Amino acid sequence: MSARKLTFIPGPIEFSDDVLAAMSTPSQAHTSPEFIKVFQSVLIKTRKLFNSSVDSKSQPFIISGSGTLGWDICGSNLLNPDDNVLVLSTGFFSDQLANCLKIYSNNIDILESPKFGSSIDLIEFESKLKLDKSYQMITITQTDTSSGVLNNIEKISKIIKLYQPNALIVVDAVCATACETLLFDSWGIDYVLTASQKAIGVPSGLSISIASERAIEKAFKKEKPNSFFADMKRWTPIMKAYEDGRGAYFATPAVQLIHALNVSLDELLINDSISENVKLHKIASDNFKDKLVNELGLTLVPISRDVAAHGLSVVYYPDGIVGSDLLTKMAENGFTIASGIYKDYKDKYFRVGHMGVAAIGARKIELDQCFEALKLSLSQLGYTN
Amino acid sequence: MSARKLTFIPGPIEFSDDVLAAMSTPSQAHTSPEFIKVFQSVLIKTRKLFNSSVDSKSQPFIISGSGTLGWDICGSNLLNPDDNVLVLSTGFFSDQLANCLKIYSNNIDILESPKFGSSIDLIEFESKLKLDKSYQMITITQTDTSSGVLNNIEKISKIIKLYQPNALIVVDAVCATACETLLFDSWGIDYVLTASQKAIGVPSGLSISIASERAIEKAFKKEKPNSFFADMKRWTPIMKAYEDGRGAYFATPAVQLIHALNVSLDELLINDSISENVKLHKIASDNFKDKLVNELGLTLVPISRDVAAHGLSVVYYPDGIVGSDLLTKMAENGFTIASGIYKDYKDKYFRVGHMGVAAIGARKIELDQCFEALKLSLSQLGYTN
Repeated sequence: MSARKLTFIPGPIEFSDDVLAAMSTPSQAHTSPEFIKVFQSVLIKTRKLFNSSVDSKSQPFIISGSGTLGWDICGSNLLNPDDNVLVLSTGFFSDQLANCLKIYSNNIDILESPKFGSSIDLIEFESKLKLDKSYQMITITQTDTSSGVLNNIEKISKIIKLYQPNALIVVDAVCATACETLLFDSWGIDYVLTASQKAIGVPSGLSISIASERAIEKAFKKEKPNSFFADMKRWTPIMKAYEDGRGAYFATPAVQLIHALNVSLDELLINDSISENVKLHKIASDNFKDKLVNELGLTLVPISRDVAAHGLSVVYYPDGIVGSDLLTKMAENGFTIASGIYKDYKDKYFRVGHMGVAAIGARKIELDQCFEALKLSLSQLGYTN
Repeated sequence: MSARKLTFIPGPIEFSDDVLAAMSTPSQAHTSPEFIKVFQSVLIKTRKLFNSSVDSKSQPFIISGSGTLGWDICGSNLLNPDDNVLVLSTGFFSDQLANCLKIYSNNIDILESPKFGSSIDLIEFESKLKLDKSYQMITITQTDTSSGVLNNIEKISKIIKLYQPNALIVVDAVCATACETLLFDSWGIDYVLTASQKAIGVPSGLSISIASERAIEKAFKKEKPNSFFADMKRWTPIMKAYEDGRGAYFATPAVQLIHALNVSLDELLINDSISENVKLHKIASDNFKDKLVNELGLTLVPISRDVAAHGLSVVYYPDGIVGSDLLTKMAENGFTIASGIYKDYKDKYFRVGHMGVAAIGARKIELDQCFEALKLSLSQLGYTN
């Protein structure tokens, strides 16, 4: 057992030693040649993270903030007050996204998945797009961290392209980037937002996102901005300058976090691609979930394995186990895991994150240790399978 | 000379070894007991940074972002569209604050200082408040980092209290907190915003601010929020929970930056007060400016020493010296200093930051070395006094 508790929540995750070392990079001016070079490299590699090329005229944004800021960047730049928006909801984080977008548009519809633990019903969704009003934006939470449900972005975007090609496709990939497949250019996504502290493997503090050419065009057409700090019009020339190897200033970037992101992206991109990293997460997730189900007899919240996300496992407490007792016992046994967070269900399930270095990297044995600690904790609480 | 260039711009500044070490704190869950204790300590100490007690019912906010986010927090929470706002401008950053507030109110007036390098004319300001319309908000940039001009917040707030006691008093203290005096409670300030990377001595990535009871009340009365991520209504219960030693979640805090802030605040608060730290900055600043003027014969941008800020020196290039040449030479001699940034003046002056550990702390000899490098660089460029 490690000398400190290991963090196996669905973000922040455990960070590699090299990433943590980069967090201590001594001060550099944000417009110094040394930092410009690092930020340039980060922006170029961020495109690879999302599978988007410069040729597509997409625009990455790396801004001090959290995943939540990405929702405001989306709403404040890509919506007009009369726009019709459809939010596909598979849990707490989808609902919060809807709450954010309500600030920027008066017409937010929510299509919920049929039940907690299921993904969006594609037949219901298709019917809605065929018959319902036309939408200017449709949002999908790729992995809702509250339910562990994975939506099929490829299929959903195909349906949107078929019935409502003018709708901007927005993906909340906070708990999905680098551990689920997302092909920004080839699937025709318009805005993906994520954060640093999940499978990207960098301490919290960065909002990381990418917008398509048509999304940027819509943002630039807005006559009056809704936000200063989140304004794509102000950030676009800054990001372009850094990607071109020049300095520019709007608001001071988080120099040390961007250094850490630079190191982490080098760890994530194998042969210049994120696909191997995604594959390793799928293997680790399948293995962990198999053991939860087969060895411990536990029940996953996602109703089937094809809708279960790979960055975390969301699991019902077995009968007779009080949630807070299990979390306390796990802490005593060396691991921080997370409680539930969705409405009436929140005391019925727990969440274990398995992303990054301690799940698929040099320290992947720690995920096995986490499983053993879970087994031990349950047995200490009198659970028998 | 140090093995790397030292950063003597007006932020980010050089950081202490202990602060940088805290940036590498291994992962902790944002709601773990370990992190809650640290965030609680940070919030309690942040009150001391601003000279504000719990009894005043003020509310500190520490949010992932930059100083710029503080402007949006101010505008989106404390303004209604018809509010009259008066922005006192002493440079680029005051003007940018006005540009931000224009998003949230349609009535932004700007009172500029009489000329570049002067502070707000208090007689002109007083007349304006006596005769002009009534304002719901008046903003002051304590130190405008573009001009190095210091405004007298104590005098300005007294004038506001006398003629327009209902106006919210907002202070942009980004380059002033911890190196200039600010008594939040006793001067009756309503909102102060700052950032981590200046005299607070923590890498960039945190927006740090504090709101008065009446500011919070106005924010809570707003029917429709203008922002999700910057919403005081959503953040207030979170900050209160952490200050009370409980965890709460709205958006993931920047765990490592908050650890670094905890260490830095311990370095800044001597006998539980920020005043000694402020005093040391005044001594270091006076000494540095004396040498610039007396030894090198240079001219400061601030028109008199009583309006010159203490966290940086803003200096005209002497005749015959090309700005970019001096900055390049300084880099060769081991120091990053900053160019000008204000309108037509920007190529006429340079800026040297002198805050934190390398100016007043254990490494304060580095500020002397910076001065020597400046002397050398000027002489290498043929300047003779």
